[in-house]
Amino acid sequence: MAGLHVRSVLVTGANRGIGLGFVQHFLRMPNPPQWIFAGCRDPKGQRAQELQNLASKHPNIIIIPLEVSDPASIKAAAAKVGEHLGGSGLNLLINNAGILKAKSLDNEVLQDMTETYTTNTVGPMLMGQAFLPLLKKAAQGSPGSGLSCSKAAIVNISSIGGSIASAFGWELMQVTSYRCSKAALNMLSKCQSLAYKEHGILCVALHPGWVQTDMGSSAGHAPPVTVDDSVQGMLKVLSSLSEKDTGAYLDWEGNVIPW
Amino acid sequence: MAGLHVRSVLVTGANRGIGLGFVQHFLRMPNPPQWIFAGCRDPKGQRAQELQNLASKHPNIIIIPLEVSDPASIKAAAAKVGEHLGGSGLNLLINNAGILKAKSLDNEVLQDMTETYTTNTVGPMLMGQAFLPLLKKAAQGSPGSGLSCSKAAIVNISSIGGSIASAFGWELMQVTSYRCSKAALNMLSKCQSLAYKEHGILCVALHPGWVQTDMGSSAGHAPPVTVDDSVQGMLKVLSSLSEKDTGAYLDWEGNVIPW
Ligand SMILES: NC(=O)c1ccc[n+]([C@@H]2O[C@H](COP(=O)([O-])OP(=O)(O)OC[C@H]3O[C@@H](n4cnc5c(N)ncnc54)[C@H](OP(=O)(O)O)[C@@H]3O)[C@@H](O)[C@H]2O)c1
Ligand SMILES: NC(=O)c1ccc[n+]([C@@H]2O[C@H](COP(=O)([O-])OP(=O)(O)OC[C@H]3O[C@@H](n4cnc5c(N)ncnc54)[C@H](OP(=O)(O)O)[C@@H]3O)[C@@H](O)[C@H]2O)c1
Repeated sequence: MAGLHVRSVLVTGANRGIGLGFVQHFLRMPNPPQWIFAGCRDPKGQRAQELQNLASKHPNIIIIPLEVSDPASIKAAAAKVGEHLGGSGLNLLINNAGILKAKSLDNEVLQDMTETYTTNTVGPMLMGQAFLPLLKKAAQGSPGSGLSCSKAAIVNISSIGGSIASAFGWELMQVTSYRCSKAALNMLSKCQSLAYKEHGILCVALHPGWVQTDMGSSAGHAPPVTVDDSVQGMLKVLSSLSEKDTGAYLDWEGNVIPW
Repeated sequence: MAGLHVRSVLVTGANRGIGLGFVQHFLRMPNPPQWIFAGCRDPKGQRAQELQNLASKHPNIIIIPLEVSDPASIKAAAAKVGEHLGGSGLNLLINNAGILKAKSLDNEVLQDMTETYTTNTVGPMLMGQAFLPLLKKAAQGSPGSGLSCSKAAIVNISSIGGSIASAFGWELMQVTSYRCSKAALNMLSKCQSLAYKEHGILCVALHPGWVQTDMGSSAGHAPPVTVDDSVQGMLKVLSSLSEKDTGAYLDWEGNVIPW
């Protein structure tokens, strides 16, 4: 395991749940990143309080207003991040923001399908496009050949719910809108891996486990995995990835998930 | 091979390309369906001329105005089809209508992503919901146990472009919006197969081959497969399906495609 050493990282949906967990774990690293960009769609809101407190104590956390379903917000965020970075690039983009509407197939409607797709699938695509110049710059500025998450990477937080082969947990939660959006996100990850390989950028889709967050606990469920264990597991997985892993679909313990 | 014997079928996007091919092949069967519902979003338009000519000669073709991205249009179509069928059910729903915007990943935008998803993925979901009562009725009214396309089935015309595992043809066409929509359609097919099995409805995702239609020929390509061969192949595949095949992803020659 090469270890994960990034100078800069951006996490979307960083104000609670798994996103906030990533920020906390980056802070606690022996060599914390110089810039931890915490994307948050409502930095002044109630739900950003914990992130604000953390940022007030750690100057390497920079809160970036970021609504991932809005192309203008994404462009503004990329510009802002670019300013902070000065001449250097962005090593790691973690597309973590996501939504889930707990519905059965019978009750799915056009609007929920579109909203879920826009946030969970289109957002990560637009993020990849907008931050591509900064990711490229990081890849170019890093020594050595081959791909790695310490160099330049896009990490899409997917879900085992997006595994078509397994249809995991269907009896518990149908959530067709969510499953379709995550299967599509897996396809996006594959497309990004193919398109961005030549730029030196590793791309991967990760399932964080079934985690104790608002989303994980929705519909009265009691998820088995803590945010801490999930994020620690994912960071370990990320640190171990190399060229051969780009385009993969893995869980927080490093297991390959069938598409 | 049991042979395909349906009393009623609905094809979306039936005015040209593969959809029109389906209508023509159903007409030519030794035992043609009593009702061939030809969904068409602009029945009076230029592009519906050939279908109109065909319908004027064959009273078992019933043209149904149908815009698959519009829930109201879908509901109206289901009501109309129900009226025609009187008390009987619909055996076969072929979700064929689809769009492709020929773009590279760099040039994809939110609107194309959403539009493609709405037509290629959400449309088939809403169609399944709206026609579920008629499909159930067909299943209940058919003799014998087990699933089959002669009894009651939803056929989603997908694409090998939706195969995440293969990323087929990436060098030729990136079309990320299309690939994501078809991967999501494959997930939808899986969800429909799980939800509708208890109702006696078989669900399958089919790749028609690379076919000589407007879509297939877009961006100056010369596809190898004729509409006739594609549709004939798919009908043969459909006639061979049984309970064990529900939820499968197959091509027009019956080969299983990796998700
Ligand atoms: N928890 C699980 O068991 C589990 C399992 C599999 C996959 N996942 C995936 O893990 C990721 C994180 O989930 P979580 O459990 O931490 O969920 P969560 O606790 O519900 O948090 C979701 C985060 O995403 C943000 N977000 C939602 N929509 C957004 C938008 N349009 N723009 C910007 N930010 C947006 C939220 O911001 P606000 O506070 O402003 O709403 C929040 O920060 C998601 O992609 C989810 O699908 C989770
Ligand atoms: N051709 C290939 O090589 C190929 C390969 C793999 C998969 N497929 C799939 O096969 C299916 C048929 O494709 P094709 O080659 O026959 O394409 P095509 O020649 O472009 O025809 C598309 C059909 O879909 C209809 N349509 C599009 N959007 C619609 C909407 N919103 N509501 C209702 N109808 C709509 C079109 O109607 P209008 O005439 O009104 O536009 C037309 O009838 C598609 O799902 C496609 O993805 C094709």
